[in-house]
Amino acid sequence: MADRYVYFFGAGETEGSRDMKDLLGGKGAGLAEMARIGVPVPPGFTITTEVCRLYLHGGRYPDGLREQVDAALARLERATDKRFGGGEAPLLVSVRSGAAFSMPGMMDTILNLGLNDRTAEALAAASGDARFAFDSYRRFVQMYADVVMGVHADQFERLLEDAKHRRGVTLDTELSADDLRALVAEFKALVRTRSGKDFPEDPQDQLWGAIAAVFGSWDTPRAKAYRRINNISDSLGTAVSVCSMVFGNMGDDSGTGVAFTRDPSTGEPRLYGEFLVNAQGEDVVAGIRDPLHIDGMEQALPASFHELVAAARLLEDHYRDAQDLEFTVEKGRLYLLQTRNAKRTGRAAVRMAVEMVDEGRITPEEAVLRVAPEQLDQLLHPMIDPSAPVRVLSTALPASPGAASGRVVFNPDEAAERGPHEPVILVRRETSPEDFHGMVVSQGILTCRGGMTSHAAVVARGMGKCCVAGAGDIVMDEARRTFSAAGETVREGDWITLDGSTGRVILGKVPTVEPEPTPDFERLMAWADGFRRLRVRTNADTPHDSVVARRFGAEGIGLCRTEHMFFEGDRIDAVREMILADSGAQRAIALAKLLPMQRADFEGIFRAMDGLPVTIRLLDPPLHEFLPHGPAEIRDLARKLGQDPIRLREQVERHHEANPMLGHRGCRLGISFPDITWMQAQAIFEAAVNVQAEGITVFPEIMIPLVATAEELARQRKVVDDVAHEVFFQCDAKVDYLVGTMIELPRAALTADRIAEHAQFFSFGTNDLTQTTFGLSRDDAGRFLPEYVGSGILPDDPFQTLDIDGVGRLVETASRLGRGVVADLKLGVCGEHGGDPRSVTFFHQVGLDYVSCSPYRVPVARLAAAHAALADRKRTTGPATPLEAEALAAD
Amino acid sequence: MADRYVYFFGAGETEGSRDMKDLLGGKGAGLAEMARIGVPVPPGFTITTEVCRLYLHGGRYPDGLREQVDAALARLERATDKRFGGGEAPLLVSVRSGAAFSMPGMMDTILNLGLNDRTAEALAAASGDARFAFDSYRRFVQMYADVVMGVHADQFERLLEDAKHRRGVTLDTELSADDLRALVAEFKALVRTRSGKDFPEDPQDQLWGAIAAVFGSWDTPRAKAYRRINNISDSLGTAVSVCSMVFGNMGDDSGTGVAFTRDPSTGEPRLYGEFLVNAQGEDVVAGIRDPLHIDGMEQALPASFHELVAAARLLEDHYRDAQDLEFTVEKGRLYLLQTRNAKRTGRAAVRMAVEMVDEGRITPEEAVLRVAPEQLDQLLHPMIDPSAPVRVLSTALPASPGAASGRVVFNPDEAAERGPHEPVILVRRETSPEDFHGMVVSQGILTCRGGMTSHAAVVARGMGKCCVAGAGDIVMDEARRTFSAAGETVREGDWITLDGSTGRVILGKVPTVEPEPTPDFERLMAWADGFRRLRVRTNADTPHDSVVARRFGAEGIGLCRTEHMFFEGDRIDAVREMILADSGAQRAIALAKLLPMQRADFEGIFRAMDGLPVTIRLLDPPLHEFLPHGPAEIRDLARKLGQDPIRLREQVERHHEANPMLGHRGCRLGISFPDITWMQAQAIFEAAVNVQAEGITVFPEIMIPLVATAEELARQRKVVDDVAHEVFFQCDAKVDYLVGTMIELPRAALTADRIAEHAQFFSFGTNDLTQTTFGLSRDDAGRFLPEYVGSGILPDDPFQTLDIDGVGRLVETASRLGRGVVADLKLGVCGEHGGDPRSVTFFHQVGLDYVSCSPYRVPVARLAAAHAALADRKRTTGPATPLEAEALAAD
Repeated sequence: MADRYVYFFGAGETEGSRDMKDLLGGKGAGLAEMARIGVPVPPGFTITTEVCRLYLHGGRYPDGLREQVDAALARLERATDKRFGGGEAPLLVSVRSGAAFSMPGMMDTILNLGLNDRTAEALAAASGDARFAFDSYRRFVQMYADVVMGVHADQFERLLEDAKHRRGVTLDTELSADDLRALVAEFKALVRTRSGKDFPEDPQDQLWGAIAAVFGSWDTPRAKAYRRINNISDSLGTAVSVCSMVFGNMGDDSGTGVAFTRDPSTGEPRLYGEFLVNAQGEDVVAGIRDPLHIDGMEQALPASFHELVAAARLLEDHYRDAQDLEFTVEKGRLYLLQTRNAKRTGRAAVRMAVEMVDEGRITPEEAVLRVAPEQLDQLLHPMIDPSAPVRVLSTALPASPGAASGRVVFNPDEAAERGPHEPVILVRRETSPEDFHGMVVSQGILTCRGGMTSHAAVVARGMGKCCVAGAGDIVMDEARRTFSAAGETVREGDWITLDGSTGRVILGKVPTVEPEPTPDFERLMAWADGFRRLRVRTNADTPHDSVVARRFGAEGIGLCRTEHMFFEGDRIDAVREMILADSGAQRAIALAKLLPMQRADFEGIFRAMDGLPVTIRLLDPPLHEFLPHGPAEIRDLARKLGQDPIRLREQVERHHEANPMLGHRGCRLGISFPDITWMQAQAIFEAAVNVQAEGITVFPEIMIPLVATAEELARQRKVVDDVAHEVFFQCDAKVDYLVGTMIELPRAALTADRIAEHAQFFSFGTNDLTQTTFGLSRDDAGRFLPEYVGSGILPDDPFQTLDIDGVGRLVETASRLGRGVVADLKLGVCGEHGGDPRSVTFFHQVGLDYVSCSPYRVPVARLAAAHAALADRKRTTGPATPLEAEALAAD
Repeated sequence: MADRYVYFFGAGETEGSRDMKDLLGGKGAGLAEMARIGVPVPPGFTITTEVCRLYLHGGRYPDGLREQVDAALARLERATDKRFGGGEAPLLVSVRSGAAFSMPGMMDTILNLGLNDRTAEALAAASGDARFAFDSYRRFVQMYADVVMGVHADQFERLLEDAKHRRGVTLDTELSADDLRALVAEFKALVRTRSGKDFPEDPQDQLWGAIAAVFGSWDTPRAKAYRRINNISDSLGTAVSVCSMVFGNMGDDSGTGVAFTRDPSTGEPRLYGEFLVNAQGEDVVAGIRDPLHIDGMEQALPASFHELVAAARLLEDHYRDAQDLEFTVEKGRLYLLQTRNAKRTGRAAVRMAVEMVDEGRITPEEAVLRVAPEQLDQLLHPMIDPSAPVRVLSTALPASPGAASGRVVFNPDEAAERGPHEPVILVRRETSPEDFHGMVVSQGILTCRGGMTSHAAVVARGMGKCCVAGAGDIVMDEARRTFSAAGETVREGDWITLDGSTGRVILGKVPTVEPEPTPDFERLMAWADGFRRLRVRTNADTPHDSVVARRFGAEGIGLCRTEHMFFEGDRIDAVREMILADSGAQRAIALAKLLPMQRADFEGIFRAMDGLPVTIRLLDPPLHEFLPHGPAEIRDLARKLGQDPIRLREQVERHHEANPMLGHRGCRLGISFPDITWMQAQAIFEAAVNVQAEGITVFPEIMIPLVATAEELARQRKVVDDVAHEVFFQCDAKVDYLVGTMIELPRAALTADRIAEHAQFFSFGTNDLTQTTFGLSRDDAGRFLPEYVGSGILPDDPFQTLDIDGVGRLVETASRLGRGVVADLKLGVCGEHGGDPRSVTFFHQVGLDYVSCSPYRVPVARLAAAHAALADRKRTTGPATPLEAEALAAD
């Protein structure tokens, strides 16, 4: 007997099931499954992916295929009581591609296959609607010619426009059946001219042409590129599903609609959707008639409605998840065309997941897997009231989620002045550390330049403040204190609203809604915490951020950037004095001023993090960042320091660097000026001793940044240990502490075994590691990175989602080398990637101990870590149910 | 029988040999070897490194050691007819450390051990010179107390100064024997106060104290750090050599000197050296008496002279290399104290090596190994006349070798104007590509900032022009057109001379000598070429450089930087027009202007390289580098382009990047503007077709720079292949060409397998790879890199000598991954490291096909490649002779 290449579904004769995705594709398996469990579907059959492989590899169809297709067609004719290519009731079919993985790069669906001049007339007669029949025919010719014969759809559209012009009408629906009949003839003539071939009249020819086109679409450059980028094997192939057509526009006992088994925006467990009597799906899309709420179907087609309710219940029970259904009623008979897991808002996702556990449908593991970590973002930030009308000025990067309204200010001093009294939005070309005081008091930040990891974006996310970045179409006029966009000019003091979750800049004050973490959310997170192995810390530089993060579940601080403390109030003057010191003695005076300030900061943070570890990074940025830039600022500083402004300018210029990111920064500063390291270590240890005396439990972890060689770490560690020894001796106290390093340079990763000899922990600084591994500056990447991602050179922005092939490989290498020397070396991540779910999965897989992210991303990271751990569990034991397998695969 | 821990040498009873370096250390084995072959040495004995290991590990000496030392001492007394610690002729010894590898971090020599109050008097009597005896005693106490008892030498020097002050004299030699006797007492009192212990009177105590100190010196932090940096195992241990003292100041039948068996500066085969009658080595060092030329010894001590000549011949025959000898004549009896391979100039090295082959002493392999590649540098560049007096203004980085005099100019336009008429030296804070026209016409370049791989240094080396870089102690006053240094003020137009081989900046015009490659040089290089596997190409951007490099033996161009062509003449205007174009059409116009210029350049280079491959790198630097900077320049360009200067300034500013090295450059430009790639490829292929028609053989290899992902290369390669196809079709011709990429980003190295799918060759851009692997900008590293190298954090400047642990690992990984996909993938290096001998060795080892370096480094690279290949040969077959082993080990 020949191998089986064709699987029938529907009409009680279903041969496939959901488990056969590899062979039948996602769509084919789904239709078979619905049919199998008794949900009414239009019958049809699926040609397997194996045929695709044989056809593409060997150039011909396997023996027996034609016979099996013929047999399936005959069954289909029997099941529908229609005839393919003839009879009073012609059998029309849809033909679709369908691989095991969804692939947007592949062939579109062909509808109404089987129509020709003869069957169109028969359809007109059978439906009693000639216009419907010839409109369907016209669409079929156009679609088929486009997809199968390579005649571009545009050219048909032009003929259609001409026809409407001749008739003096504007809508397609105003063309009569005769107009459309004539148009079909024009379409076919065009096909002949353009392709040199006649449009196939024989439905058999149509069908085999469509099958070949589907298989051929597997190998188009676009599909290949998509697979290459998404790591899908070229050898899988696609299936072809051939399904009998049903029509919802066959009279008032027909109709079409979509339904969700639960409300996709709230999660409320009731049928939700839209419905149109005597209509096709296309009518809904065209927006000519307003659809009814699904409840209205109960009056219009009560029997079908109750069938639908029953089918919905059956499908939800079967798939154990809320479903998104497409259905058509043809002459009082209900068909489901598709069911899939319903897309939903974060709020709905959480509610559905928790309630389904309560209903006993799913386990807490499954509930946790049901909510995508990114969805939590919506639950943690204020949102624009979805019912409010908005005037969008620009849509740029959603750099930090949430929504905020305020009056426009153009400089941080102005913001600092007005911010405490009224809500302000700081609008800047780009921000720098010197804008910090203005950012702190603003409701939101809008920049014209910079990407998702620009200064504005990183700082705003850290503060949980909304930010829209890189709005390149906004034209700033700082002199006039205005900006213009989308034809509007906005003046200082005018109200604008930012939507940091979508990147919209909106004119005026728009109401926002403040979401409250619900009890459902808390229950879900508690389950997630029970599953995950990876700890989640936060990046926080102030006691306030620490408190916020702890409320969100942070289990310590993974990155406290000491330099952020340097910008507060008038500390910057002492910092500048330190940098510009001519001698060690002068520098010592400036450092002595900074010591008590840093100590007080650390005390505050240690108190907020009582009982949890706090990783403090020593001074990292190039010193030039702290210096004044404009002549006025330089004059000002010269006055304060009692120096000659010209000499001071020279000193400032001497600190200028061609590539500061690759310059004199990180531990290189501590090597050149060990007294800075000394001061910072002293502030940390004195603070630790002081709060410990108050009964607070402290675990400082001191982190040496930008280490490239083991020797750098060895020397900096010695300074830190010496200071600890001295402080503990003088205070007659002792605090447990660790000294470790950031792995943020390729060389550090490559020589991590030697570095580990001097380290008690590693923290991967994946922002910088991405910069150096790619040779790509975050500050400059905006010039071409969007194009790179847009055109598929890169699958993602590597500053948002870790580049696993390159940067990830270094993380893996360093982890392996480090643990080879120190078996229990503590490993963490403190780059922005610590809050990105896909990256978190990777960090879990390579065995890190924790990730660290901005406070508002902590719940996202907790959930992502739980997903990663559950995926592990499944990998070792195998998924318990097909549902779980799907939830895992969807991740 | 107990193990043997002590080996005697001299007096015809020698027990060791040169093969026992591991056990006896370098010094001990050398003395034994001399004694063994009949060269007179003062007898003595060596305590093995094994004792050191046992002592340091177990805390005590092995059983039997004391007895063996006593026995050796007794033999030494018999051999010298003196008694240790007594008698009329007291036996005095020197005690030295000596490991298998030379270690500057270890203990100094102790001389005259065995002296005490009694033996000093005996020595005074025996020598008839009480002053000599007590001066020796005084020195011994000081040295022993310093090295063994931890009393710092400074404190003794102070007592000595006091004594001279009391006596009203200024020279040590003016102190009488009684003064010195009194001083010894003072010294001993000081030792008691400082160390709390009496100075040991018993020579046995002295000896065992010294032995323990030598062994202890193996484990000092300084010695450990030295070993860590130099990869010497801590477990080797040091030997102790105890040698009987001989004195050259025992009268007119005594003397001391040094001799070379061949002239170390010319290589001439005759005895060369210096000699003093009735003197000790210290007298030579002190410079009180002018030593005689060695020939003078024939008159003074004819018998000893002839003995010396015989010993020299014997040692040269034995070691088969020119020797550097230390000798002493004590009362008419010659002793050799040391022999070692003579240091020599490059010129001498080449001559000696070639002549020794002719003399049948060594093989051509050995001759090639005798010359260090770096030594060739001296032979290829003009040098300051060594006999000329000089006034040095500053000593900075020897950035590009050679010497040149010229008049000072401070800007490139001035240089361009005066340069063609008179020699000029361009003095700049730092240079940029815009200074190129001025650099071309200057004799040499001096910069205040920047390191060995700064723009000035790289460009100068490429042109074989001398350059001194990073002269930080020079104060520039560009407004007054002067600079000052070392108290001198130099005005524009004043003469200065640069010594690029030593980094000296010299006031005035100093004569230089122009070395001529000798026939010896040519013979040596021919042998080297016969041994090496690695090909050597050159980095050249002009036909002129190509011709020079070919003369130096370059086997192709490994890096032709197309952007350098953009700065010539008024091309820069068209380049700027291209960069600032608002539309593709405008850019096309500018590119059309550049096309014929680039084509003509390539034609010139292809002709010069007839028959050899030429690797051309497509446009690489950030576009901002080509744009004008100052307001005047911008106004000027605005006039030329007919644009508004304010708008132009904005455009220029828009191209500014925070970290240009990590910015929009390399293939990122070609991805954003494929028409630039198109134009460059068109120029290359048209040039290739044109010169091929002239009968020239061309092998263009087109190199896509700064690739981070395989997809970038795939897309750029497609453009290049498309252009090739079109040009070949239009010209009805065909040229073989390759398309490949630079591996200069860590990500490219880590994903080299994927990249190799689209590459026909890889060229490692180790400059950029070093920058990103270390996160270290060449332009900024000058701020701290010297300190890093100076203090041992880094063993070398990684921009000069490849960092094998980090960058080298990436080179190795990429080579392995690339060849795993394309087995015969061509691999080369085009960074500055291609001309660094140690780096070349590594490139040979990882199996690259070629290195590429600046024209003047080509012979250095050829020789280094030969060394690397010979080292391979020895590794597989083992060294043929101990001599070869030493030559290899010294490399």
